Amino acid sequence: MNYSKGSPSLSASSPGATGTVALRWHGSSLELLDQRLLPAQEHWVTLEGASGVAQCIQDMVVRGAPAIGISAAYGVALAARHAGGGDWKAEIEQAIRELAASRPTAVNLFWALQRIERVFHACDSLSEAQKRLADEAVAIHQEDLAGNLAMADHALEAMGFSVGTGKPMSVSVLTHCNTGALATGGYGTALGVIRRLHEKKLLKQVYADETRPWLQGSRLTAWELMREGIPVTLNADGAAAAILAAGEVQWIIVGADRITANGDVANKIGTYSLAVLARYHKVGFMVVAPSSTVDMSLASGEDIPIEERDGVEVREIRGIPLAPEGVPVFNPVFDVTPANLIDLIVTEKGVVRNPNITGMHGLFG
Amino acid sequence: MNYSKGSPSLSASSPGATGTVALRWHGSSLELLDQRLLPAQEHWVTLEGASGVAQCIQDMVVRGAPAIGISAAYGVALAARHAGGGDWKAEIEQAIRELAASRPTAVNLFWALQRIERVFHACDSLSEAQKRLADEAVAIHQEDLAGNLAMADHALEAMGFSVGTGKPMSVSVLTHCNTGALATGGYGTALGVIRRLHEKKLLKQVYADETRPWLQGSRLTAWELMREGIPVTLNADGAAAAILAAGEVQWIIVGADRITANGDVANKIGTYSLAVLARYHKVGFMVVAPSSTVDMSLASGEDIPIEERDGVEVREIRGIPLAPEGVPVFNPVFDVTPANLIDLIVTEKGVVRNPNITGMHGLFG
Repeated sequence: MNYSKGSPSLSASSPGATGTVALRWHGSSLELLDQRLLPAQEHWVTLEGASGVAQCIQDMVVRGAPAIGISAAYGVALAARHAGGGDWKAEIEQAIRELAASRPTAVNLFWALQRIERVFHACDSLSEAQKRLADEAVAIHQEDLAGNLAMADHALEAMGFSVGTGKPMSVSVLTHCNTGALATGGYGTALGVIRRLHEKKLLKQVYADETRPWLQGSRLTAWELMREGIPVTLNADGAAAAILAAGEVQWIIVGADRITANGDVANKIGTYSLAVLARYHKVGFMVVAPSSTVDMSLASGEDIPIEERDGVEVREIRGIPLAPEGVPVFNPVFDVTPANLIDLIVTEKGVVRNPNITGMHGLFG
Repeated sequence: MNYSKGSPSLSASSPGATGTVALRWHGSSLELLDQRLLPAQEHWVTLEGASGVAQCIQDMVVRGAPAIGISAAYGVALAARHAGGGDWKAEIEQAIRELAASRPTAVNLFWALQRIERVFHACDSLSEAQKRLADEAVAIHQEDLAGNLAMADHALEAMGFSVGTGKPMSVSVLTHCNTGALATGGYGTALGVIRRLHEKKLLKQVYADETRPWLQGSRLTAWELMREGIPVTLNADGAAAAILAAGEVQWIIVGADRITANGDVANKIGTYSLAVLARYHKVGFMVVAPSSTVDMSLASGEDIPIEERDGVEVREIRGIPLAPEGVPVFNPVFDVTPANLIDLIVTEKGVVRNPNITGMHGLFG
């Protein structure tokens, strides 16, 4: 890896570093691993301006709520770095607007941009903005990684593993989409918990939903886990219920794109189905996300804007038609899991059990 | 269409004929529409012997429990037709064994072969066997089509539609896999009910699960419904729960590959998930299948052998890798829905409501 001088702690030897990263910051450019081409190709896209970063977020070169937020922060830093001599403030404001419009559901994007914006408004000169915005983006990145490690510890404790006191039972888990190093600053939310279970020899098996239509499970989660020797079995999304019925897993662990004040969770389409199935089969259901995913300004999941993408994502794979031309498609990217189906919401700040408005206000109010 | 003289009633103008067929019988050969290539190509495979038919069943050139049973029956008729002058009985017995080994879960296959076998054992000469086995296969085909029409009527009545007495409300439904003309003798089981709803102007919208890994929903159901102008919207399997949560559908209607004495149902992987979701959302769950799908010799779903197919079906689409090479895959073709999650089992013999062992014995005992 080739990090800039500004972020020496984000090297491969950092605590929690997995050898798998979604983005590399070089001070004057940002490199994004093109996740659309995985696992067939590891291709890096180099970006020197905010527009390119916004386009990459829109096109899902980079995805995963925390990774989107971090990328957007770096995007603003790039806008400052390359701002012309004219109205630099207007240029940076325009970059923030453009990045904010790239994806509608993941709140980390807006959270990161607001954090960057506060720093920006405190800057009196372009050179100050260049330095401070880059530093802030690096801080967001570093804090995300540290947060992932903290939430993994909180999760294991909440699952009842008091590590070090004899050998506890190992668990098998099922996960959806990709919430790992590729979706975050470098460790993972739900997949970070799974990584930690593996590190502590508490993990028997991971079942990974392939996660149609984008196949983040097949393409990214399976790839990440195999690289690290974590035992993974892939399944079609429709097979998850049969896995639960067979008693094969004890926990379903997923990420989140937005969590509302009552504990409702927007996450990748298919998550809600798993939550209903988990309750029916008396399997634990855990949501793991940074506290920046929590949006206390929204009362419930009904208020979350849900992105719908083009039906071509379901009708085709890599340009090969799978369905008749022109068939109408319902292609929402996310669904909403109501709080009453969730056992644990885990963040770096701590855990909310059986989330409701009181529990959420207790930790995030 | 080009049916042989032996089956004049199976023409395109027959009652219930949809213009869509999976197989064509020509007396000395059987043509199968290669369903693996749909919707991109309409390619017919011509078969003159039982081995080829068995291979086509195994490879899913033809699929759908009733269509498999019909194809197998024609396969035996072909074996008789082309039997050499030697031990013609041994040749036909071998063909039956080979066809029986082609797929393990769909009981219609074994039912059709047993029916054919009974006729075969009553034959004293090869020429008698040639005539009677072909006639029996055609009868199985014709009865399947007639049965589809009868079960559609039973289903509409059980749904509370007394057609002709004013304009009833229309319904929207969700279906899984393909259970239409392509899966049967020419009309459909679950999709036959949906066809009939459309014919009676009782249908608002069909949501079709794409049905990974084989994508029968995208490739076959969407194709069949679009050809006939039936309103269909395709969705990723993981989006079904969001559709139910939005109150968009009133019934989930699926087929079956085997139904046991207590009313448990083996059907395409993903069906069980829908049954759990239907119950949670208070949406009706209906299974539609010919009575030949009922296997009263098995006490419950636990006794049904579930076919697992090669993981390559999940790892790749049309030869394009979607997942890392060699990742382990859990790829069961079917799952078991317990009777207590089913509102209606509909067959050509009638309907079992809230199926259990008593209700099943009442109709099939």
